[in-house]
Amino acid sequence: MRDDQYMRMAVHLAEQASGQTSPNPMVGAVVVKDGQIVGMGAHLKAGEPHAEVHAIKMAGEKARNATIYVTLEPCSHYGRTPPCAELLINAGIKRCVVAAVDPNPLVAGNGIRIMEDSGIEVSLGVLEQEAKKLNKIFFHYVKTNRPFVTLKAASSLDGKTATKTGDSKWITGEEARIDVHHYREQHDAILVGVQTVLMDDPSLTCRLESPKKQPIRIILDSYLKTPENSKILNDQAAETWIFTTKAAGKEKSAKIREKGVRVIESDEETIRIPNILKFLGEQGISSVFVEGGSTVHSSFLAAKAFNEVVFYFAPKLIGGKDAPTIISGQGFQSMKEVPNLTIKSVSQIGEDIKIIAVPKE
Amino acid sequence: MRDDQYMRMAVHLAEQASGQTSPNPMVGAVVVKDGQIVGMGAHLKAGEPHAEVHAIKMAGEKARNATIYVTLEPCSHYGRTPPCAELLINAGIKRCVVAAVDPNPLVAGNGIRIMEDSGIEVSLGVLEQEAKKLNKIFFHYVKTNRPFVTLKAASSLDGKTATKTGDSKWITGEEARIDVHHYREQHDAILVGVQTVLMDDPSLTCRLESPKKQPIRIILDSYLKTPENSKILNDQAAETWIFTTKAAGKEKSAKIREKGVRVIESDEETIRIPNILKFLGEQGISSVFVEGGSTVHSSFLAAKAFNEVVFYFAPKLIGGKDAPTIISGQGFQSMKEVPNLTIKSVSQIGEDIKIIAVPKE
Repeated sequence: MRDDQYMRMAVHLAEQASGQTSPNPMVGAVVVKDGQIVGMGAHLKAGEPHAEVHAIKMAGEKARNATIYVTLEPCSHYGRTPPCAELLINAGIKRCVVAAVDPNPLVAGNGIRIMEDSGIEVSLGVLEQEAKKLNKIFFHYVKTNRPFVTLKAASSLDGKTATKTGDSKWITGEEARIDVHHYREQHDAILVGVQTVLMDDPSLTCRLESPKKQPIRIILDSYLKTPENSKILNDQAAETWIFTTKAAGKEKSAKIREKGVRVIESDEETIRIPNILKFLGEQGISSVFVEGGSTVHSSFLAAKAFNEVVFYFAPKLIGGKDAPTIISGQGFQSMKEVPNLTIKSVSQIGEDIKIIAVPKE
Repeated sequence: MRDDQYMRMAVHLAEQASGQTSPNPMVGAVVVKDGQIVGMGAHLKAGEPHAEVHAIKMAGEKARNATIYVTLEPCSHYGRTPPCAELLINAGIKRCVVAAVDPNPLVAGNGIRIMEDSGIEVSLGVLEQEAKKLNKIFFHYVKTNRPFVTLKAASSLDGKTATKTGDSKWITGEEARIDVHHYREQHDAILVGVQTVLMDDPSLTCRLESPKKQPIRIILDSYLKTPENSKILNDQAAETWIFTTKAAGKEKSAKIREKGVRVIESDEETIRIPNILKFLGEQGISSVFVEGGSTVHSSFLAAKAFNEVVFYFAPKLIGGKDAPTIISGQGFQSMKEVPNLTIKSVSQIGEDIKIIAVPKE
């Protein structure tokens, strides 16, 4: 087998832990000796062993003079676990094939250098794009210290998210709705505006059969209008954070805090998206799934604060000048200001269409 | 070769005349004898010979005991040309393979019956779906006596057709815009609302290199607000019809008529889509390409008067509560009333996405 085939195995191993490694990346490793696979591993959870540790342990004595394929550069620093680069050296690894350099400034090439200095032959860049795509959230977070932001919307073919009376049950079919729950599982937090809470009283939980985690629920609510009896404040189904402003009432704030909900008050009268993302980054939140409504989406659009767009279009035509659309707010004045995206994928999901796009580079 | 392979050739021949046969269907014919193709033909233009006439003429004496493949049942009535069923009998055709029965009530199986009565072996239904798809406009028009209506729109990914200031140049890329001109060529008429004329002063012509025809330009204009100096009233580039109401000024109407434009006044104060489609059908218009704007689209949506939807989505996010959307107007009240469509195709065209959908059966 060729290097890229072994590396594809390692990528595949890494993917199995999707949704459970944050804030760490997904990493997979495969140890090969004399054409035989003698060890494999994946990083499963922050604080637990890295992929290389599992793989080297499985290989045992066979690791000596073997080749290891690993989707991310082995670490070089003492974190919650000892450095993997040293582990590979001590195990007698002869060659290390790496997909991508670790963007973490504490590693960033040091792992490779340490190995090379010890005589390990290092090959870099095999399936690099796939490895970076797999960990796009991790790469973004480590580089910017801000969460990766995914904007999600579901609308009719004419871009309406509900009828003019607010009826939105259901626009998309079951397959698309299940797909949304996979996105919830893969993100550290779900974010909505208070209008969504007032309209739908949503649970905002991941309702897959056995979710790997429940993301934190975040509400943007300048005046603390979230009803005291709303599900999200009372169901204890997941952690809940509310961003508000100094314009909100202190009494309401205290009552909400009593329910175990975290209330974060800005010292301004408006909520600013860049400030929120900075705060979330500091709190270790590496990804946010923004589910709307249209005013929240317009705030993220105006701040150009998004890394991916996931839109579901149902084969329906709702029409109506007053029906809500995907993105409301101010919007841009001229076509020159409008951000251009690149379509990453277009697919049919059930009877609906799913479009993934990213800001054009 | 098999029957379906010869029939695919016939379908391919028929397609070459796309956009130039209206109100007649596109038809192709292939004559085969002893495994050799001895004749082929296509119907090129209303009033000119049918596909079978060309093919039989090419085959000459070799038509005797040959098989003919024809995409539509040979006609049985004396129209502008003598009946093709008799032609095939006289030419000594042994077997006739037909894709689809002619929906024209003057034919509708009579052509097949006449041939069978004369001892020709008839096989029906080979590539029937392809043949019906090829002539979806013709089939609809002959069955309903109303034009086939295609709704077209181009918007950002969030369903906006312009910024809130009306800037819409350009939303989609060049490939999508050229694609629109192919649709214009294939329809008998292009229809827009007067708002589009007031906003854009469009030419509404087919600007392909050598268009097969220029469709009639139709404006819905209840109060005859179309400016006297608008391109569409003065460029003589194609026939122009304006639908208006008795609320419009007689003087303006006379001035517009002087320019060679046809003004059709309803005896009501509003324009009703079903009435317009009835009128257009009576005038021999078999297809209408409705290009908006959003109010016109909402009228067609409310009347559920459309047969196909062609939407182009550009990878852009315009946003804005006041930015125009694909379909405005009243819209539906509840999701129960909303018409369901079936997605026929999703494709990328340049940097944009093209979605074709039809009303769900």
